[in-house]
Amino acid sequence: MFLKPKRIPIRVGNKYIAILNIKTAASMDLHPEDRIHLKNGAKKITAILDITERKELKDNQIGLYAETWDKLGIKPKHKVHIEVAPKPESDTYIKEKLQGKTLSRKKIDCIVKDIVADDLSDIEMTYFVSGCYARGLSDSETVNLTKAIVKFGNKLHFNDKIIMDKHCIGGVPGNRTTMVVVPIMTALGYRMPKTSSRAITSPAGTADTMEVLTNVINDAPKLKKIAMKVGGFITWGGGVDLAAADDRLIRVRFPLKLDPEGMLLASIMAKKFSVSANHVVIDIPLGPEGKIQSKKQGKHLKSRFLAIGKKLGMKIKVFFTNGSQPIGNGIGPVLEAMDVMKVLKNAPDAPQDLKKKSIMLATELLNLTGKYSSPISAEKVITECLESGDAYKQMQRIIQAQGRKQMPKPGKHQMSVMAEKSGKVQVINNKLIANIARTAGAPKDVGAGVYVYKKLGDKVKKGEKLYTVYSENKVRFDDVKKLAINDVYKINGN
Amino acid sequence: MFLKPKRIPIRVGNKYIAILNIKTAASMDLHPEDRIHLKNGAKKITAILDITERKELKDNQIGLYAETWDKLGIKPKHKVHIEVAPKPESDTYIKEKLQGKTLSRKKIDCIVKDIVADDLSDIEMTYFVSGCYARGLSDSETVNLTKAIVKFGNKLHFNDKIIMDKHCIGGVPGNRTTMVVVPIMTALGYRMPKTSSRAITSPAGTADTMEVLTNVINDAPKLKKIAMKVGGFITWGGGVDLAAADDRLIRVRFPLKLDPEGMLLASIMAKKFSVSANHVVIDIPLGPEGKIQSKKQGKHLKSRFLAIGKKLGMKIKVFFTNGSQPIGNGIGPVLEAMDVMKVLKNAPDAPQDLKKKSIMLATELLNLTGKYSSPISAEKVITECLESGDAYKQMQRIIQAQGRKQMPKPGKHQMSVMAEKSGKVQVINNKLIANIARTAGAPKDVGAGVYVYKKLGDKVKKGEKLYTVYSENKVRFDDVKKLAINDVYKINGN
Repeated sequence: MFLKPKRIPIRVGNKYIAILNIKTAASMDLHPEDRIHLKNGAKKITAILDITERKELKDNQIGLYAETWDKLGIKPKHKVHIEVAPKPESDTYIKEKLQGKTLSRKKIDCIVKDIVADDLSDIEMTYFVSGCYARGLSDSETVNLTKAIVKFGNKLHFNDKIIMDKHCIGGVPGNRTTMVVVPIMTALGYRMPKTSSRAITSPAGTADTMEVLTNVINDAPKLKKIAMKVGGFITWGGGVDLAAADDRLIRVRFPLKLDPEGMLLASIMAKKFSVSANHVVIDIPLGPEGKIQSKKQGKHLKSRFLAIGKKLGMKIKVFFTNGSQPIGNGIGPVLEAMDVMKVLKNAPDAPQDLKKKSIMLATELLNLTGKYSSPISAEKVITECLESGDAYKQMQRIIQAQGRKQMPKPGKHQMSVMAEKSGKVQVINNKLIANIARTAGAPKDVGAGVYVYKKLGDKVKKGEKLYTVYSENKVRFDDVKKLAINDVYKINGN
Repeated sequence: MFLKPKRIPIRVGNKYIAILNIKTAASMDLHPEDRIHLKNGAKKITAILDITERKELKDNQIGLYAETWDKLGIKPKHKVHIEVAPKPESDTYIKEKLQGKTLSRKKIDCIVKDIVADDLSDIEMTYFVSGCYARGLSDSETVNLTKAIVKFGNKLHFNDKIIMDKHCIGGVPGNRTTMVVVPIMTALGYRMPKTSSRAITSPAGTADTMEVLTNVINDAPKLKKIAMKVGGFITWGGGVDLAAADDRLIRVRFPLKLDPEGMLLASIMAKKFSVSANHVVIDIPLGPEGKIQSKKQGKHLKSRFLAIGKKLGMKIKVFFTNGSQPIGNGIGPVLEAMDVMKVLKNAPDAPQDLKKKSIMLATELLNLTGKYSSPISAEKVITECLESGDAYKQMQRIIQAQGRKQMPKPGKHQMSVMAEKSGKVQVINNKLIANIARTAGAPKDVGAGVYVYKKLGDKVKKGEKLYTVYSENKVRFDDVKKLAINDVYKINGN
């Protein structure tokens, strides 16, 4: 059947949707969510069907959203050929997962291929996420999912024997160790092609922070060139399309904030696998307000990382770090970037906790190479690389290679919160700090955020500054004042 | 924030969706699938957010699909107030179900209320269906789901002590016992307000078949009036909105054809509960190509029906019937209606299997009242009611009360299939018959379908007619010829 296309001037995001009126759909025995093949000359597409009333579309019309219209290259007077299409094979496998069956590599490949080709609807992808969440994924399924994500995404190939990567589970404000570790490892001559994420619910991700210094939106060929030239990069993973399947699933995972463990692991490991990483350290911060709250949870996750890493042929080290307070003093893109640069420059006021943690992570990574007789000798190499200024020079090379930017200043609206009594810092409320920084405008307003002066155990005098809030925007600044700004620090008075 | 509404001239089906461009959404920190409150004067709505590119919507615009536009009563120059809305409470409970927790009555009420209010997106409803499917629903959860569906739908109240209903799990071509049983029970003075479904994948549902004789689209007040006047009705359940939640879930269950058992049971029982039924018989056909294929499956389902019926205060009888061949001779709306009328008129060529099965079901129903000393005395009453013509007269009253129609004739394109050898009928392929009837045009072309002359065990001579295909449409008629029309009957030759 040939129908007259009508453009629906809206993009619906990585999916092809076509619309018929009730009568036309019934004449073809079609239901909402059915699939149809659309053809315009040589251009073909499989779209998912939606049905509307006769007053919105005529019987001889087919509504096409912008993506579908563009993909079919519709021109005036074109007619679109429409034909019923079968359900995708993936539906059967997704149903099997919901029933608790284990999926073979072939079936997982099929699902991931369909996701990347935009052949699955939101509903079908939701069923897949549900199945992975309610039934879990075995180590083998997770490995196959990891490989499928990379197979149907992009991959950066390097010839080096050692390719390094690191990952942090997240949930700790500040904590920009990547931006210290990558310069160190690449200064030492190792390849470290690092993709990072942007903040979703936090005040800054590594990609947001790196972006105040340099360009982080780069395609795969450009990244390959940068890594070959300066040894590595720190870029936004979402800009490379290395793990397309993963990006497609974010939308349907969002409403219930579902993180099926196997999917989470596959997503992390795919990012490592897609840059050919084979020496990987994974940082699991434990803390009362972190993503992983108990040691038991942490140990379970660790054992899964080790099992999956082994199956993927990676040397992998997983360890727990303290996630009960911010790492570094700045929270928010500009403030965090300033911390990082102070550490690299060996500035006298550099945050020592960020420096120490970065050295620790870099040491573990270096140790994985097996070239050092003891962790102490590895640590010495790392510390020298950092303190000699080599890592700083290397960071400048990376910034230059990616496309240097002028770093903005911290927000002009500033407000400091003082201690209401003297004593020792007993608790720092990470979630509240993150909320204050976000309310102030971070990460979108890059100069917004929080700068903390005191850490756990520090002595504080009444009236002494605990932290300063920075904002670029008066309205947001005023919103911060409505928050429980005096509850961030709990001070144990004498 | 106030935005200029732009109408997107498409209906998306029982959901409120609003669209912002990327920049406006980012300025409010909004993601796809977030919720926003929309206000136009006194009219308020909660919509789900979609995000499009800047070339499709301006920064000060908000795109509204037809349902949302109409609900907000937008007029020229109106501006829409927009505000971030919290996630619905239901999301938490749906996640709990996915985690395997048992949901309380309050939580199930909350989810069903949100579904009926169109407050849940397709993705959220899909997660709910997934949870029910992967984790199952206990008897208590199923009862609470049943009650919630009725609570947030419509209910027909009657003062009678006895209100009858029946249900068949389906999967058997023909089998229009409802249209015989309702006239009998109402002729005997019992109230029997029967809602039926239309075909989804079969050649005819009871509603499709009844519709060739009378109007089946009636609202609740009209149905109440009909039932008070003539004792009962046979109407299309989808036209009454008795189980609104159920109807909303169909769309998301469709792609994977998921029938979570607890949801299926609640859906069936809600239809009984919503017409106040308290005496119910349930027919589970068992057959190699039916919905329930093994006795074990059947027994499990039976025990669940009994447990749930008891908790709902219903007298309920569940039994297994033979689902291995069609019941009656006609398959397709007109052909099935002709069978029913022949049975009611005691015509000499009335299909005896349909008559016998209808009498059996009616007898079981009458027995549930506890007024008869033995099944035999109940059966006598039923048989007399049918054979005396009382049931026929009663059917005419029901048809008249609902709004009589002139029954169309069977399709003019006809083709008969003959036996290729002599012998006994050993197998009749139900699925293939249904496929032939649907290909011929049933249920949309009401005169289309199949008429079978032979049943299992019948003797057949080579060249004798086995069945006739009827079609109203030449193209469809020709499509039938491409099917395996000679494989419907398997004849055991001598």
